[in-house]
Amino acid sequence: MAKQNIYDNETFFSGYMELRKREVNANNLFEIPTLYKLLPDLTGKRVLDLGCGSGERCVDYMKRGALKVTGIDISEKMLEVARSENADPGITYLNMPVEDIDSIDEEFDVVISSLVLHYVEDFQGVVKNVYRLLSEGGIFLFSQEHPINTCYSGNFDRWTRDENGRKIYANVADYCIEQKNDHTWFVEGVSRYHRMFSTVINTLTDAGFRIMRIEEPHPDEELVKKYPDYDDLFHKPDFLFVKAGK
Amino acid sequence: MAKQNIYDNETFFSGYMELRKREVNANNLFEIPTLYKLLPDLTGKRVLDLGCGSGERCVDYMKRGALKVTGIDISEKMLEVARSENADPGITYLNMPVEDIDSIDEEFDVVISSLVLHYVEDFQGVVKNVYRLLSEGGIFLFSQEHPINTCYSGNFDRWTRDENGRKIYANVADYCIEQKNDHTWFVEGVSRYHRMFSTVINTLTDAGFRIMRIEEPHPDEELVKKYPDYDDLFHKPDFLFVKAGK
Repeated sequence: MAKQNIYDNETFFSGYMELRKREVNANNLFEIPTLYKLLPDLTGKRVLDLGCGSGERCVDYMKRGALKVTGIDISEKMLEVARSENADPGITYLNMPVEDIDSIDEEFDVVISSLVLHYVEDFQGVVKNVYRLLSEGGIFLFSQEHPINTCYSGNFDRWTRDENGRKIYANVADYCIEQKNDHTWFVEGVSRYHRMFSTVINTLTDAGFRIMRIEEPHPDEELVKKYPDYDDLFHKPDFLFVKAGK
Repeated sequence: MAKQNIYDNETFFSGYMELRKREVNANNLFEIPTLYKLLPDLTGKRVLDLGCGSGERCVDYMKRGALKVTGIDISEKMLEVARSENADPGITYLNMPVEDIDSIDEEFDVVISSLVLHYVEDFQGVVKNVYRLLSEGGIFLFSQEHPINTCYSGNFDRWTRDENGRKIYANVADYCIEQKNDHTWFVEGVSRYHRMFSTVINTLTDAGFRIMRIEEPHPDEELVKKYPDYDDLFHKPDFLFVKAGK
């Protein structure tokens, strides 16, 4: 099964790092605050970060009292940044695709994954392994691109606009067809695996997880006054969060 | 809080009854089979049907071995049909809005509701009452219009079509705005309460329910060969099902 490593593509990597440097982006405004809102108390906890990227979150988890943090990522380029900028005696960085966690034989209390699992073909395999790695009462918290976004196949316009260019509807197609959908994001052919909402939830409950909370972050009116470009998120959310317990 | 009783409107009632008489409709092809697929073993169970309509399902539940079935509905017209065509010594029909189940003081093992809860403003109140009415280990199984459908506000076209009139995208707007949305279905001003997925799920888990299974029914290729008009359901499902346990 092919494991996608777009982050080691030079063009992708530099485009992505520029985007993340911007103070105002969807990650900073919606994804990160929601992740932290849902985060359990990490005091004394053993944390696994699936797709840790450049390690900023691993450092935060240590600051929040984690006993130790293991960060894994498929991209050696990302881990180079992590090891130089976000090193900590409590953090171990491992170069490994998320799909390979079946090789890990260690117990964790909290497994976190931020915006990675829509890149993974074998979602069920990862979920089963996370369940295996968690201690009793352990928490699995992840975000992914929202199913309403991953369902696009081919190159069609995602929005219908009025005569002034304002987005008036999201164009949604093929939501019920679960497949690999390629799109262009800095580089051509970035693959996302579309799974319906029901498949995401049923894969978790079938593995033994208890669904604790779902979030679909969106702006409030105050935020839209400040950043009017984000009013399209009222039409469809970018992200889906799931918090599940063993 | 206003409780909507469109089924006692003469125009609505006759239009609706004509639709349900058709052998091929979305209810028969997708809604009813999914409901029965998710149904637990009813042998010896006390069943409550929220929004039982004309009572066909109540009779089925008795045939499947239920100890007794209580069917409630806001529409006296529907219950007249139920009492004349679907009477059974084990079935009690009560004329009552779903929102008034706080007046019921009786234990049930299974609570079922088919395509009713999107008409209910106080979803949280109903969910809390269902939890209260259920025995330990009891099951709550319901279908509702899919959130991707209830989010439409105002009169905009739900579909973008190609030059041949074929539906190519569903037009989705205001998914993240939870509100009462009126639309025309036989009569003007049929109100549906839009709730995001996350709100549906979180309302259940907050009340104490364990999510067991979610379904978003859609056709397979064989069915689309037979009934090509239903291929639009690949773009967006009509229904959402939730099975939850106490």
